[in-house]
Amino acid sequence: MNNNPKEDWKTALHKIIYEADTKAGKLFDIVLFITIVASVILVMLESVKSIDVHYHRIINTAEWFITILFSLEYIARIIVVKKPIKYITSFYGIIDLLSTAPKYISLLFGGVHALAALRALRLLRIFRILKLVRYLGASYTLIRALKASRVKISVFLFTVIIISVILGTIMYLVEGESSGFTSIPASVYWCIVTLTTVGYGDISPVTPLGQFIASIVMILGYGIIAVPTGIVSAEYATQHKANKDKAPVIPLNSQSCANCMAENHKDSAEFCYNCGHKLH
Amino acid sequence: MNNNPKEDWKTALHKIIYEADTKAGKLFDIVLFITIVASVILVMLESVKSIDVHYHRIINTAEWFITILFSLEYIARIIVVKKPIKYITSFYGIIDLLSTAPKYISLLFGGVHALAALRALRLLRIFRILKLVRYLGASYTLIRALKASRVKISVFLFTVIIISVILGTIMYLVEGESSGFTSIPASVYWCIVTLTTVGYGDISPVTPLGQFIASIVMILGYGIIAVPTGIVSAEYATQHKANKDKAPVIPLNSQSCANCMAENHKDSAEFCYNCGHKLH
Amino acid sequence: MNNNPKEDWKTALHKIIYEADTKAGKLFDIVLFITIVASVILVMLESVKSIDVHYHRIINTAEWFITILFSLEYIARIIVVKKPIKYITSFYGIIDLLSTAPKYISLLFGGVHALAALRALRLLRIFRILKLVRYLGASYTLIRALKASRVKISVFLFTVIIISVILGTIMYLVEGESSGFTSIPASVYWCIVTLTTVGYGDISPVTPLGQFIASIVMILGYGIIAVPTGIVSAEYATQHKANKDKAPVIPLNSQSCANCMAENHKDSAEFCYNCGHKLH
Amino acid sequence: MNNNPKEDWKTALHKIIYEADTKAGKLFDIVLFITIVASVILVMLESVKSIDVHYHRIINTAEWFITILFSLEYIARIIVVKKPIKYITSFYGIIDLLSTAPKYISLLFGGVHALAALRALRLLRIFRILKLVRYLGASYTLIRALKASRVKISVFLFTVIIISVILGTIMYLVEGESSGFTSIPASVYWCIVTLTTVGYGDISPVTPLGQFIASIVMILGYGIIAVPTGIVSAEYATQHKANKDKAPVIPLNSQSCANCMAENHKDSAEFCYNCGHKLH
Repeated sequence: MNNNPKEDWKTALHKIIYEADTKAGKLFDIVLFITIVASVILVMLESVKSIDVHYHRIINTAEWFITILFSLEYIARIIVVKKPIKYITSFYGIIDLLSTAPKYISLLFGGVHALAALRALRLLRIFRILKLVRYLGASYTLIRALKASRVKISVFLFTVIIISVILGTIMYLVEGESSGFTSIPASVYWCIVTLTTVGYGDISPVTPLGQFIASIVMILGYGIIAVPTGIVSAEYATQHKANKDKAPVIPLNSQSCANCMAENHKDSAEFCYNCGHKLH
Repeated sequence: MNNNPKEDWKTALHKIIYEADTKAGKLFDIVLFITIVASVILVMLESVKSIDVHYHRIINTAEWFITILFSLEYIARIIVVKKPIKYITSFYGIIDLLSTAPKYISLLFGGVHALAALRALRLLRIFRILKLVRYLGASYTLIRALKASRVKISVFLFTVIIISVILGTIMYLVEGESSGFTSIPASVYWCIVTLTTVGYGDISPVTPLGQFIASIVMILGYGIIAVPTGIVSAEYATQHKANKDKAPVIPLNSQSCANCMAENHKDSAEFCYNCGHKLH
Repeated sequence: MNNNPKEDWKTALHKIIYEADTKAGKLFDIVLFITIVASVILVMLESVKSIDVHYHRIINTAEWFITILFSLEYIARIIVVKKPIKYITSFYGIIDLLSTAPKYISLLFGGVHALAALRALRLLRIFRILKLVRYLGASYTLIRALKASRVKISVFLFTVIIISVILGTIMYLVEGESSGFTSIPASVYWCIVTLTTVGYGDISPVTPLGQFIASIVMILGYGIIAVPTGIVSAEYATQHKANKDKAPVIPLNSQSCANCMAENHKDSAEFCYNCGHKLH
Repeated sequence: MNNNPKEDWKTALHKIIYEADTKAGKLFDIVLFITIVASVILVMLESVKSIDVHYHRIINTAEWFITILFSLEYIARIIVVKKPIKYITSFYGIIDLLSTAPKYISLLFGGVHALAALRALRLLRIFRILKLVRYLGASYTLIRALKASRVKISVFLFTVIIISVILGTIMYLVEGESSGFTSIPASVYWCIVTLTTVGYGDISPVTPLGQFIASIVMILGYGIIAVPTGIVSAEYATQHKANKDKAPVIPLNSQSCANCMAENHKDSAEFCYNCGHKLH
C-alpha cells in the first residue's frame, strides 16, 4: 500500500480512468462512451454542408468543449501512469493524441478536412472501453476461433487476390476499353467487385464472351464464400466445445498495472504478472 | 368449472379466439390468417396508382368490410379476457388497434398515406397465429440458437458499424464530393452498402486510391460474413445435439390463461402456472 | 423369365431406355444427355437475333432433327412400359411432351416465342439421367439434410417476406414516389433486392432517413443469411455423422420396374418391392 | 553420393532452385517471389495509359531486365533437372515459358496486348513457391475438405446452372426485349447475376410480373448459398477432427527428386518413393 498522499490520489484516479471495477470507474467509462459517440456525430454533421451552413457556430462550440474534455483526459492519463512514455507510444496513446490534436491545429492553419476527419478515430477507443467493462468477455471464443483460423484465411484471401488479378487481366483483353475495362488495375477492381458479389454495375461486361467469363467469376465468388465460413464455423465449434469441456476460467478483472499497463490480472492477484509491481 | 351461463359463452369464445386446439379455434385462426393477408394485399394495391384509379371503389368497400371485421374481433378480444387493460396494453393489443384505426381516422381527415400504411402492421399478427397453431414449434431449436448467440452477434454488428464509420470517413477524404461522397454520413452509407455486398452503384469510387480502398472494404465484407454464420452454425449444432440428448419435451398446448394471458401451458395443467387461475 | 419373343425386345429396350447398368443403357444416357444440351443451346441461339438472321435455316433443320429424335424416344418410352398412362401422366412424361410439342405446334401457328422456350424444360430431364447413372448418389446426405431442414427454412423465408413487406411499406412512406418508390409493391421489391444483398441500384434511397433505414435493412440482410447457413450446416453434419455410424448401405441399382416404374431396387432383388412384378 | 564435380554443381543448384530447406534455397524463393510480384505490377502499370505515356521507357527497361532474369531461371531449371522434357511439359514448365516468351515475341511483331497480358500468368508460380516453403502446410485440412466435397459441390453448381437457364428463359418471355432481356443467353446471364446476389443493375426487370419472379430468384439465391457453405463446414469439421484424432503426421520436406520431380518426400527418405533415384 502506498501511504504517500500525493501517490494516493494518483492511485485513486488510476482506478477511475484505467479500471472499471469500482462505481466511479464504471461511471467514467459510460461518460467517456457517450462523449466519444457525441464527438463522432459532430464530425459527421460538420461534413454535411446544409447542416454546417446553419449550425456552424453551435457545432464548433460543442467541438471545442469536447476537445477540451479529451485534452484533460489525455493529460490525466499521462500523469496517473508510472511510465508516461509507455502510454504515449502505445496504440491507444497515439489514437488519443491523433484524435484530439486536429482541433488545435485548425486554429493555426484553418479547418483542414483531412485533419478534422482524424477525430473519427476516437471510435477505436470504444474497443478499449468495452474491454474494460468486460463486455467482450462473451466473445473470447469468437476471438480464439478467428486466431486459430488466421493462417487459413490468409491463404484464402491470397488465393482470391491472385484469381482476381488473373481473371481481371483476361477480362481486360476480352472486353477492352470501350466497355469500361480501361486498364488492368480497373479490370482487377471490377473482378473483386464481382467476386465478392458486391456488383456496383459501374463497369459491367457487354460482349457475350465477357458476360460468359463474368458468369464464371460470379459462380466462383458465390461458391468461394463457403470456404471462410466453413473454416470459421469449424474452428468456432472446436473452441466452443473445448470451452465447455475444460474447467471454469479463473475470473480476471479490468485492473491495469500502473507501472507497465499490463492487463487481465486475476482477481486474486497481488502483484503484476508482467513486471511484479504491486497492484492496488 | 364455471356454471354461470354468461361466463360460459365467454369461456367458449375465449377458446375460439385465443386457442387453437378445438376445431372452431383452428377455423378462426385460418379465417383470420386469410383476412390479414387479403387486407395487406388491399393496402398494397391501393398504393399502385394505375390500379387505384380504376378500382378505387371496390378496394375502398373491401377495406371497410375488413376494417369492420377487425373491429368486431378487437371488441370480442376485449370482452372475453378477464383483464382487458392487460390485452389493450400488450404488444399485440397495440398492433391490433394501430392497424384498425387508420380507416376510421381517414373518415375525419381524408386518406392520409402514412396512416393507411399502418395497416400493413397487421402482418405482425401472423406471428401470433403461427404461435398458436404451433407451426413454429419446429423452430424452437433455431430460436434458442439465436438467443445463445445474441451477445456475440451484437459485438459483431457493433464492430461492423465502427468499421463502416472509420472507413466511410477515410473514403470521404479520398474521393471527395465530386464522386458522390458528399458528406461523411453519405460515405458511411456507401461503406455499409459495400461491406454488406449489396452494391447499388448509386455512389461508387472513381479514383484509383478510392477503388483500392473499396476493394479492401469488399474483401473485408466478403470475409466478415463468415463470422455470424460460424457463430449461428456452432450454436445451432450445440442446441440441436442438446435437443436430441435430453428427455422428450412435455407437450404444451395453445391455451392462453383467461386471467393473465400467460401461454404455453402443459397439456395436463389444471391451473395457470403464472397466476393460479383455473384453466378450462 | 419371359420367353415370348415380342416381349423380349420390349424387355431389352426397357433395359436400354430406363436403366443404366448395361453398356447399351449407359450409351443411351450419354447420347440423350448430349442431345438435350445441344437442343437447349439451339433454343438459346435461336433467340439471339444476330445469329438467327444468318443461320436460321441451319438452326431450324437441326431443331427438326432433334425434335424427331425426341418424338421417337417418347413413343419408345410409351411402348416399352407396361402401363403407358402412368408414364404419360408422370412428372417426366409431361416434361417430355411439353418440350417436344412446341415444334409441331409452330407448324400450325407459326413460331410462337413462348412455346419455343418450353423446349428449355428439357433440361429438367438431365436430373432423370443423373439419377439413373447414380451420379447423384454422392449427394444423398445433402438431400436428406435439406429435407430435415425444410420446415425451419420455410419459417425463415416466411419471416424474410414479412420483414420485406413491413420495411417496404415504411420505405414507401419515407422516400415517396420521387425516389422511385412508386408503390408499396415496388418498395417491397426494393426491400427484397436489398435484404438479399443483390442491390441492382435501379431504385435506391436518396433521403438521409431513407438511407439510414436502408442501412439497417442491409445489415439485417447481411446477418440473416447466417440463419439458413447455420441450419443446413448443422443438419448436414448430423446426417453426415449418422451416415458414417450406421451399417454400409445395401447397393441399389438403376433398374426401374416395367410394370409400376418403381425405382431403387436392391441389386439382389428378384421382384419389385412395390408391385411384386418380376424384375428382369 | 555423386563425386563427379560437374554433377556436383548441378546438385547444388537443384537444391537452391527446387528446394527450400537450405538458406540459399529460401533466399532464392524470396527473391523469386519479389521478382514475380514486381513483374505483375509492371504489366499492370503498362496497361494504364496515363502512366505508360510518361514512363514507357522505364517500364520497358524494367520489363526487359525481369524477362532476362526469368529466361536465365528457365534455362537453369532445364539444365539442373535430369529429365528436362518432363519439366518443360509440366504445368509449371508451360507457365514459365508462356510468361517469359511475350517480351521476345514483341520484338518481332510489336507490343501485342493479348500477349503482354500473358505475363500475368507468372502469378500462378507463386503457388509453387508457397508449396516449397510449406506455407500451405497449414491448410492441408482445408484442401482435403474441399476434395471431399468436390462431387457434392459439382452437383450443386450443376443445379444452379440448370435453374439459371430455366428461370432465364422464363424471364426472357416475361420481360421481353424492351427491358434489356434481348435474348435467352442475356436472360440467363441476368439470372446468374441475380442468383449469385451480384446484381449489377445493367439489366433489371421493369414489369410487375418480372419483378415478382426476380424476387423469387433473389430469395432462392439467398437461400441456396447455404448449401455449399453447409457442405464445406461439415466436411471441414470432419477433416479437422480426423486430423486431431490420428497420429502426428510424419514430417515431409520440400525436396524434389532430380530424376522424376516427385515431391513431398519424408525427411528420413534416402531414395525417391516414385522412381527409386537416390535423393541428395
